[in-house]
Amino acid sequence: MSKHIAAFGEVMMRLQVPGYESLAQGRTLNYSFSGTGVNVTSAVARLGHTGYMISTLPKNPIGDAAMSFIQKLGIVPSYISRNGENLGMYFLENGFGVRPSQVTYCNRQESSFNTATTDNYHFQKIAEEIDVIHFCGITLAMNDQVRSQMKSLAKAVKANGGKVVFDCNYRPSLWGEGGYKKAKSHYEEMLHLSDLVMMNEQDAKYILELKTNKLERKEQLIDLLPIVAQTYQIPVIAGTHRVIDSANFHSLQGFMYKDNSLTFAEPVSFQVLDRIGAGDAYTSGILHGEINGFSPEKTVAFATVAAMLAHTVVGDTPTASENDIFQAMNHASLDLKR
Amino acid sequence: MSKHIAAFGEVMMRLQVPGYESLAQGRTLNYSFSGTGVNVTSAVARLGHTGYMISTLPKNPIGDAAMSFIQKLGIVPSYISRNGENLGMYFLENGFGVRPSQVTYCNRQESSFNTATTDNYHFQKIAEEIDVIHFCGITLAMNDQVRSQMKSLAKAVKANGGKVVFDCNYRPSLWGEGGYKKAKSHYEEMLHLSDLVMMNEQDAKYILELKTNKLERKEQLIDLLPIVAQTYQIPVIAGTHRVIDSANFHSLQGFMYKDNSLTFAEPVSFQVLDRIGAGDAYTSGILHGEINGFSPEKTVAFATVAAMLAHTVVGDTPTASENDIFQAMNHASLDLKR
Amino acid sequence: MSKHIAAFGEVMMRLQVPGYESLAQGRTLNYSFSGTGVNVTSAVARLGHTGYMISTLPKNPIGDAAMSFIQKLGIVPSYISRNGENLGMYFLENGFGVRPSQVTYCNRQESSFNTATTDNYHFQKIAEEIDVIHFCGITLAMNDQVRSQMKSLAKAVKANGGKVVFDCNYRPSLWGEGGYKKAKSHYEEMLHLSDLVMMNEQDAKYILELKTNKLERKEQLIDLLPIVAQTYQIPVIAGTHRVIDSANFHSLQGFMYKDNSLTFAEPVSFQVLDRIGAGDAYTSGILHGEINGFSPEKTVAFATVAAMLAHTVVGDTPTASENDIFQAMNHASLDLKR
Amino acid sequence: MSKHIAAFGEVMMRLQVPGYESLAQGRTLNYSFSGTGVNVTSAVARLGHTGYMISTLPKNPIGDAAMSFIQKLGIVPSYISRNGENLGMYFLENGFGVRPSQVTYCNRQESSFNTATTDNYHFQKIAEEIDVIHFCGITLAMNDQVRSQMKSLAKAVKANGGKVVFDCNYRPSLWGEGGYKKAKSHYEEMLHLSDLVMMNEQDAKYILELKTNKLERKEQLIDLLPIVAQTYQIPVIAGTHRVIDSANFHSLQGFMYKDNSLTFAEPVSFQVLDRIGAGDAYTSGILHGEINGFSPEKTVAFATVAAMLAHTVVGDTPTASENDIFQAMNHASLDLKR
Amino acid sequence: MSKHIAAFGEVMMRLQVPGYESLAQGRTLNYSFSGTGVNVTSAVARLGHTGYMISTLPKNPIGDAAMSFIQKLGIVPSYISRNGENLGMYFLENGFGVRPSQVTYCNRQESSFNTATTDNYHFQKIAEEIDVIHFCGITLAMNDQVRSQMKSLAKAVKANGGKVVFDCNYRPSLWGEGGYKKAKSHYEEMLHLSDLVMMNEQDAKYILELKTNKLERKEQLIDLLPIVAQTYQIPVIAGTHRVIDSANFHSLQGFMYKDNSLTFAEPVSFQVLDRIGAGDAYTSGILHGEINGFSPEKTVAFATVAAMLAHTVVGDTPTASENDIFQAMNHASLDLKR
Amino acid sequence: MSKHIAAFGEVMMRLQVPGYESLAQGRTLNYSFSGTGVNVTSAVARLGHTGYMISTLPKNPIGDAAMSFIQKLGIVPSYISRNGENLGMYFLENGFGVRPSQVTYCNRQESSFNTATTDNYHFQKIAEEIDVIHFCGITLAMNDQVRSQMKSLAKAVKANGGKVVFDCNYRPSLWGEGGYKKAKSHYEEMLHLSDLVMMNEQDAKYILELKTNKLERKEQLIDLLPIVAQTYQIPVIAGTHRVIDSANFHSLQGFMYKDNSLTFAEPVSFQVLDRIGAGDAYTSGILHGEINGFSPEKTVAFATVAAMLAHTVVGDTPTASENDIFQAMNHASLDLKR
Repeated sequence: MSKHIAAFGEVMMRLQVPGYESLAQGRTLNYSFSGTGVNVTSAVARLGHTGYMISTLPKNPIGDAAMSFIQKLGIVPSYISRNGENLGMYFLENGFGVRPSQVTYCNRQESSFNTATTDNYHFQKIAEEIDVIHFCGITLAMNDQVRSQMKSLAKAVKANGGKVVFDCNYRPSLWGEGGYKKAKSHYEEMLHLSDLVMMNEQDAKYILELKTNKLERKEQLIDLLPIVAQTYQIPVIAGTHRVIDSANFHSLQGFMYKDNSLTFAEPVSFQVLDRIGAGDAYTSGILHGEINGFSPEKTVAFATVAAMLAHTVVGDTPTASENDIFQAMNHASLDLKR
Repeated sequence: MSKHIAAFGEVMMRLQVPGYESLAQGRTLNYSFSGTGVNVTSAVARLGHTGYMISTLPKNPIGDAAMSFIQKLGIVPSYISRNGENLGMYFLENGFGVRPSQVTYCNRQESSFNTATTDNYHFQKIAEEIDVIHFCGITLAMNDQVRSQMKSLAKAVKANGGKVVFDCNYRPSLWGEGGYKKAKSHYEEMLHLSDLVMMNEQDAKYILELKTNKLERKEQLIDLLPIVAQTYQIPVIAGTHRVIDSANFHSLQGFMYKDNSLTFAEPVSFQVLDRIGAGDAYTSGILHGEINGFSPEKTVAFATVAAMLAHTVVGDTPTASENDIFQAMNHASLDLKR
Repeated sequence: MSKHIAAFGEVMMRLQVPGYESLAQGRTLNYSFSGTGVNVTSAVARLGHTGYMISTLPKNPIGDAAMSFIQKLGIVPSYISRNGENLGMYFLENGFGVRPSQVTYCNRQESSFNTATTDNYHFQKIAEEIDVIHFCGITLAMNDQVRSQMKSLAKAVKANGGKVVFDCNYRPSLWGEGGYKKAKSHYEEMLHLSDLVMMNEQDAKYILELKTNKLERKEQLIDLLPIVAQTYQIPVIAGTHRVIDSANFHSLQGFMYKDNSLTFAEPVSFQVLDRIGAGDAYTSGILHGEINGFSPEKTVAFATVAAMLAHTVVGDTPTASENDIFQAMNHASLDLKR
Repeated sequence: MSKHIAAFGEVMMRLQVPGYESLAQGRTLNYSFSGTGVNVTSAVARLGHTGYMISTLPKNPIGDAAMSFIQKLGIVPSYISRNGENLGMYFLENGFGVRPSQVTYCNRQESSFNTATTDNYHFQKIAEEIDVIHFCGITLAMNDQVRSQMKSLAKAVKANGGKVVFDCNYRPSLWGEGGYKKAKSHYEEMLHLSDLVMMNEQDAKYILELKTNKLERKEQLIDLLPIVAQTYQIPVIAGTHRVIDSANFHSLQGFMYKDNSLTFAEPVSFQVLDRIGAGDAYTSGILHGEINGFSPEKTVAFATVAAMLAHTVVGDTPTASENDIFQAMNHASLDLKR
Repeated sequence: MSKHIAAFGEVMMRLQVPGYESLAQGRTLNYSFSGTGVNVTSAVARLGHTGYMISTLPKNPIGDAAMSFIQKLGIVPSYISRNGENLGMYFLENGFGVRPSQVTYCNRQESSFNTATTDNYHFQKIAEEIDVIHFCGITLAMNDQVRSQMKSLAKAVKANGGKVVFDCNYRPSLWGEGGYKKAKSHYEEMLHLSDLVMMNEQDAKYILELKTNKLERKEQLIDLLPIVAQTYQIPVIAGTHRVIDSANFHSLQGFMYKDNSLTFAEPVSFQVLDRIGAGDAYTSGILHGEINGFSPEKTVAFATVAAMLAHTVVGDTPTASENDIFQAMNHASLDLKR
Repeated sequence: MSKHIAAFGEVMMRLQVPGYESLAQGRTLNYSFSGTGVNVTSAVARLGHTGYMISTLPKNPIGDAAMSFIQKLGIVPSYISRNGENLGMYFLENGFGVRPSQVTYCNRQESSFNTATTDNYHFQKIAEEIDVIHFCGITLAMNDQVRSQMKSLAKAVKANGGKVVFDCNYRPSLWGEGGYKKAKSHYEEMLHLSDLVMMNEQDAKYILELKTNKLERKEQLIDLLPIVAQTYQIPVIAGTHRVIDSANFHSLQGFMYKDNSLTFAEPVSFQVLDRIGAGDAYTSGILHGEINGFSPEKTVAFATVAAMLAHTVVGDTPTASENDIFQAMNHASLDLKR
């Protein structure tokens, strides 16, 4: 079943030093464009849906480049408006082994998206045309104007019978000191509007201030997710637990709470090429499973493998097709397809 | 002892996306030229022999580029003719970890080699000048014209006292459905003409339809190789068993059947950079051992290490010298030679 | 006024040696995807229309890459089907000064497009949805099946009230010896169906076998275009005359015949970066002028400058916006925009 | 004679698409760091002086990279402070022939330099240590805080017996509408403090609102420079006139007003590789001539050739040594030095 | 506490084939400039000291490039003289897995440094200005002239109250056959002058001909270091033991002998990106610890982690700041800093 | 007619900064291998002859890389010996417009070739096997040992009925002060042995100390060549006159003296990409014309166009085939071959 799935959020320019050099050692940068919304809508487009990005890009060559890139990913650009002069950027220096990767953001609050006024968008028309809308907690951290746009779009989509997906994605550096306090009411408002929420026990504890006397992550999850689902009336909650086995080897275990029941996927372990954006692959997998009426077991397995594959591709944006994911679920490692 | 060793086969253009991007993500391709025959004759040239390629290349800039590349590898180009307009090509996208590498072939049946007529070559003159000729099962899969060229060249070499090497190299995708049935008589004809055959128990079971009630690969080999050697009167049969330990770590064990006795090399384990062409390094090692009268134990060890080293170099074509191989056989891992 | 403009034709992979090396000297290739149809529909998309490509791409990573590239150009991919395994390719070695550039084609007749059957397309549905369809003489040279698809699609579009654009684009190497004879009836059939034809006096003389006793190109044009327009009932005929002033400096003069009158643009002279695809920029300019009801003088000036700018960008595909073209028409050369 | 020469101004990151692609076509960027002050102090360091940059760089990897780059140029970094998180950036897309280059600025007002408070610097100490200070009109356009820093540093240097160089460098896009009006008093204040001013007749007419009834640029200069020198008590005024002969060929003529006399250099014509920063090479040449007591004729010739050579090197920053400049002044074109 | 730390030694040009190709396979080289002295002084500059290089560079573009590179690293170039025409070079081909890296030196004895006469330097002035001088055994191996410069500079520094650091760094290939015999007296002379010596038990056994009946490396160290310290009156001796766990995974354990006591760091294990220069990071860590009065335990831990981090950066030259090292000492592996 | 043509001389490594950066600005180098002998023998191989290089290459990876490169050019490597450790190198920084290119040599006298002893070669065997031997004045400038090898090989070839080609190629920097005096007797000895000499009027005046009262180059040539031919009994003398029209545009006129008659080619003008090695293309053209019995008019035209084309290809080594040269002689400029 193919749906019309849109995301509202910022498009950022990723500027990555090739290889393992630092910005001070290097001379060239590879650039691409991404963002949670871009990642999710591109991923669902690869899974057979129609993906739309709702955003604002600057009216200059940087915006043109972002536009071309988004189109290349197969995202329909018709809900993107062009205004302003800035795009959020982040510089990425690859770590190696014990030396961590380093992300440096710049130019964020001044971006076209974060300064665009509401009349820049046609929320009503969009709400009528789409089936699913995706939001994320990064956007929620930006400023009052963007927060207000987010909430009114969510309401419009719901009013037109669409579904709302919300990824908590709490980033401490964006909310600053005392951030959880500032964030709580905004998160709660979004949770009340959502049909599918991406979160884990940390979000429940720190943002929603829920208590648990369990020590282990999984047990905290078992404790807290039912309360969250109940309190905010959320049909489906999903997320992952990551373990860093060694510098470039990670393990991931997906979970999903639905119909009063918490389902865990088999954990997977794998070598990591590029971990940015892998969580968005998980979201797209859960969404795809739900749309197609997969069993919870199949959905979490599918989403976990989608996330695993996203760690093995260059760039933030997942590129696996449904077929690639099923192949990886069913087979042991191939070394060469020919 | 230095011999004149030729190979009859196709030269292909390898077009590889650098790094770990897919063809859809990338922008540039690295290109080189290879093929089983190129790999084997270049490898034996590095071991001190004179290597010749017998093939047809297009009479255009693509053929010129292939010609330069082959010369660079130290192969004597005097048996290469220039005709037609196409070269077989394959695109290679590197896998990463759990994501397998992907090979996409194109333009194969239309290639200069696969459409060249027999009067394009001087088989009689070649047969008089060389000591050893190498063929492979990939060429056998192409079409009747090429198969017939293969067989008549093999006969001419034998008639002039030369030796015939045949690498079974059965590729299911080239023979299509019911392929084993189609292939059997052609393989049998080549086996009857051969002095050294590269094969394993799978070839015996599936192509030659031999039966064994053993379950383990090694035991099947012990069962079947004597029958093959006997039936087709083959002096030496050799091959390898590969185990994929994890995505980029493989183990390899070489074997060789000669004078009614099956010799196994010590298995080696190693990290893999580029596995295409490593089997051809093994062939070149066996051939070099036989030419120089190494003991079977030394020959399989030498060939196995040659294959191991071929996994650690860029490109299809092995580059190790005899000295490099002996060093790797004798020493524990060095981290820096200076 | 924004129209729905489609093109029917082949998408090719362009493999270009960077810099000025030959294929034999080089090591890497830059690749992109283009074709007359891609160039025209991408160019009109930049001018504000909706561009569609009607074609067939292979169902493999090469086809995926072509698909991404076409989407990046802003072409709507909904009329592209995926079948077969091959894509036409051409290798490009850049010339320098007195040394000409060199194009080597391969894999053309075997391409997915040239072997696709008619039921691969939904011509009727397409004919109902689009306003303008573009064809070119390169496609006409391919084979009977493709020619028949071309003609039936042209008829379907006309039957639904759409307009047909045909670019004569006669390539001697594709039609072979005696090519003009073979081509004539096919060209005539297309001319009868066309509303806008791209051609020059050479096409009239050699394909249509019209006679003139004038010696100069312009005078031949004045002689012959009225006859062509009359004979085949073509509302608008347009084209260019190119003069190569020196290796990298060309002059171009556009013309257009409409309502019994032949209009010439002011000739422009410029330095050439990449001349492939510049003719398609001219076509898109004429089409845009006609759609918007520009005067013939404005239309040829606009199209000529569009073609000029296309010589200054990398790749086959024009990238100028309407604004870029108007700026270049109005202003003397700027050296830096900031 | 070697002097201690400092510049106060912004360091920017230059992000350039390689070759002739647009940002939408490209994938990689070359980056470097520059700015009027960087260019001038690096150039004088190459001429044998000690160059210092007075600026603020962000305390993150972007600032580290800028720091390394500045050190590489031979600039002494001891007056640079590290604060804030942003660096001004500009994207550069190379033009080709009739297609102009395009500069897109971003993140300018938020930069560490433009937001640094005055206590960030040790102006008094600097003023005691240096011989010459350089300012430019770009910095003057930024904001009140920076303007005030500029003026108090100029005064401190003068008070300690140092010389002040001011490059008018009026940029319409930075001052916005009605910019000349806003700028006038600030420029006048700087002119009153200056010992050497870089300007031309346009600055005199538009910023200083001086009138002339001459039509030709040179004659306007002859009319207006004496008035400016007189009014603001400026010992030396210098500048250039540029003519764009064709897309990549420019002509340049330097001039200098001193002791009531206006001296013109011989005009030079040359092919242009990278014109950004060439004016700063001219400034450095005038400054070097004045420091060394060259005759006005020698000074303008030296500075003009320095500017010419700066057009032939990659990047904003001039790289010619005194010897390179003298060689280019004395000799006809060499094609190869070996 | 920030000190003035200089090193006397050769600057070499490193020419590295990118990726894993051999020099025969490749086409391009990455180049940089390094040497033990460069590595140590650059590393201490990153730790907050002022680093100076005392060397001679050729007076040509190769020397200019070396100069720029050294300045970029933050080394003060004021003690570098420019003379002669040659720079020592080494080519580096990266190994992969079981295939070792390969270093090929050329042009060494002819280098500007190795042929510079003593009047090229101002040793007396330098000795007065610096706090610490660093030498290494590679320089000692060069020729009599350089050895004599080394010794007289060491004496001058000591005479002015500075400290002498000497890294034994015995390279068998530089001393040739019977090298230990030739080297002994020179090493002894340097040891007598030194305040901090980098060495291990091998140096004690082979160069200094000390005997031990212990078999294990650590026990030999415990046996021999006290004798060395006593004999040559060396306040601090430090070094590392390396274990190669597998091709790209190494373990390192630092040690330090001071005040009659031998302190070992916790061993660290890590993946290796570029091992050249990691020993120099260790030296800089020991030196920094001693300058700042760290406890021996803290000093060896700090130096060991500095060496570990140096294995994870591109190039010979360590780039970690004091803060990076403390972070890596205190925290488990981060996968992404943002 | 296909001949066996060998050259005796040095193979050098060319290390070129890509684009227009200086060595101090750049980060990567492109490398290749060339030399007068390599250029001439590779060029004649492209014209259908068998080219051999007689030289010595180091026995290390640098020598391996040179070997591969020479083989790639189609030169038969059987007369190359492997000894020593050094290869001559030169760094090339591309000029732009008025800024000249810069060549920096290093490691020349220490090269394997310049230090190889005579027993390293089999001159007698070579002299028996080849038809033509090529020498150049650069080799003559090296040292006594090499000069003596040159002369004895020339004599051996003559004694076996072969022809001797000598290119005067006087390089002032190699002979040093008073060079013409030092060089004269060596040049005279070579001229007496030569059948074809490449030279111009400057060589006659400065090396051979011949006098002329003519001022113009052509007239000096007419005066002096007959005297040279007569004095040293040289059957054919040939050379070129170059005029630098502007930075990248040169004109070239070839000439040839034979049978008492001096023939000039039509001058050609062209844009220059890479001028190193173009003179060697001229030599190969003259040699090819003489071997094939072309008329002097055809020979100089052929050689001049060969030289012109060599200016348009990357690298030192000419790549034009006989067909490319005839095409360029007969046709006006093509802009695209397809």
